[in-house]
Amino acid sequence: MPMVIRFGVSMEESLLSRFDALISSKGYASRSEAIRDLVREELVRQEWLEGEEVAGTITFVYDHHTRELAHKLLAVQHDAGRNIIASQHVHLDHHNCLEVLVVKGKPKEVQRLAGRIKAARGVKHCLLSMTTTGKHVP
Amino acid sequence: MPMVIRFGVSMEESLLSRFDALISSKGYASRSEAIRDLVREELVRQEWLEGEEVAGTITFVYDHHTRELAHKLLAVQHDAGRNIIASQHVHLDHHNCLEVLVVKGKPKEVQRLAGRIKAARGVKHCLLSMTTTGKHVP
Amino acid sequence: MPMVIRFGVSMEESLLSRFDALISSKGYASRSEAIRDLVREELVRQEWLEGEEVAGTITFVYDHHTRELAHKLLAVQHDAGRNIIASQHVHLDHHNCLEVLVVKGKPKEVQRLAGRIKAARGVKHCLLSMTTTGKHVP
Amino acid sequence: MPMVIRFGVSMEESLLSRFDALISSKGYASRSEAIRDLVREELVRQEWLEGEEVAGTITFVYDHHTRELAHKLLAVQHDAGRNIIASQHVHLDHHNCLEVLVVKGKPKEVQRLAGRIKAARGVKHCLLSMTTTGKHVP
Repeated sequence: MPMVIRFGVSMEESLLSRFDALISSKGYASRSEAIRDLVREELVRQEWLEGEEVAGTITFVYDHHTRELAHKLLAVQHDAGRNIIASQHVHLDHHNCLEVLVVKGKPKEVQRLAGRIKAARGVKHCLLSMTTTGKHVP
Repeated sequence: MPMVIRFGVSMEESLLSRFDALISSKGYASRSEAIRDLVREELVRQEWLEGEEVAGTITFVYDHHTRELAHKLLAVQHDAGRNIIASQHVHLDHHNCLEVLVVKGKPKEVQRLAGRIKAARGVKHCLLSMTTTGKHVP
Repeated sequence: MPMVIRFGVSMEESLLSRFDALISSKGYASRSEAIRDLVREELVRQEWLEGEEVAGTITFVYDHHTRELAHKLLAVQHDAGRNIIASQHVHLDHHNCLEVLVVKGKPKEVQRLAGRIKAARGVKHCLLSMTTTGKHVP
Repeated sequence: MPMVIRFGVSMEESLLSRFDALISSKGYASRSEAIRDLVREELVRQEWLEGEEVAGTITFVYDHHTRELAHKLLAVQHDAGRNIIASQHVHLDHHNCLEVLVVKGKPKEVQRLAGRIKAARGVKHCLLSMTTTGKHVP
């Protein structure tokens, strides 16, 4: 079990009551959990600026009828093999596919991979979700 | 085959040469593809503001040892069953799991689902990737 | 003097020590001040989604040699007169001007004004900083 | 007069008609202007990643009754004197001030300055608008 510390935070009554209203509307069970979430988000942003290893997902939508695209996407993924942990494919409709890659590695490597997928002709939209391996974000 | 139109764009020579350098460094095969990408990104942002149906992914990292968390996450997902197309689970290490849900629905529904997952105790980080079903984004 | 409340937050020791390192590198004098900042940022985001009145700045860069631009920018600003509190003009070089408008009003009004400036021919870049009147954010 | 080049872009008819609708709702006078704006935004993002000199504004809201704050803010600004071109002060109400600094310099310098202002006790909200000197963005 991780050691948990309890510390005091002082806040103007009016700021606190607005915060309480906001987090209760968002479904938080406690102030501590909401504050830990804000803190963790700061730390994850920092990991992507300076960290050694991050995790993320690359989500992209494409029309699988585009000539050569499936082939090209596989080639890009094989080049970056060590950054890709797993992938998932969803058939949105007759034309459109959504694919998600779960990725891991140095921030720059992962960003370059997302950039190459985005630039491929036939990929309509591509987004990188920058999250954490969780190792250094308790 | 979709009908393709060719139209003219005028641009200062110095702006164009900087754009050419940028897109070649990003691996684009043509100016048209790079410009189509910029246009599609605008349209997807618009779909999330005003659209009827969007697609996306919700990526979250959690410690599966947190008491009751797996149970809670399943309950939240079942409540939002009609928005979730598929999910994928990756074991990052002994403690940390990364899960991705592929989601579809009205923008508000999908955002609410992401909010509930983020607020759950034990979820360290949660991000929503706002992309498109591709239906109205050629 | 506003009433200040002190409440307890519990956090894993490892999360707290990483947070402490981050905020000390950013020059915060206390944990409370760093946490209040995170809380206020959440509240300001909320004001822009649901609030009645917000404040902000609109920053834009343009070449004042562009024909008719100065005239056009003044016309846009006069149309939105009641949203503009003050403006400031900086001569970046022989060609480039940077202008900042301090604005106030309903979120939609302010966003529309920023959109009209951005769309004007000759405006190179335009950004809206979404902040608060401070009235409801102690 | 800068040399203007005209080049062709090919786009699916359905993508183009949606783009036309969007830019007309935003008040653009021509497709070329809307596309130049998208291109310039990419270039400005790149300047902040790799550029030598950028321009921007730092907007912050504070309660001038906070003890020592005015003094502290002046000290921070004098330390960064060579990055600050001009400033403007608006009295939002009896308590709240909004101040905008027009800044210039290396991306890291400007970001550090914004960080120091944000961390000061009594500053409620602080945002950095990352724009361009316009020199390399025609």
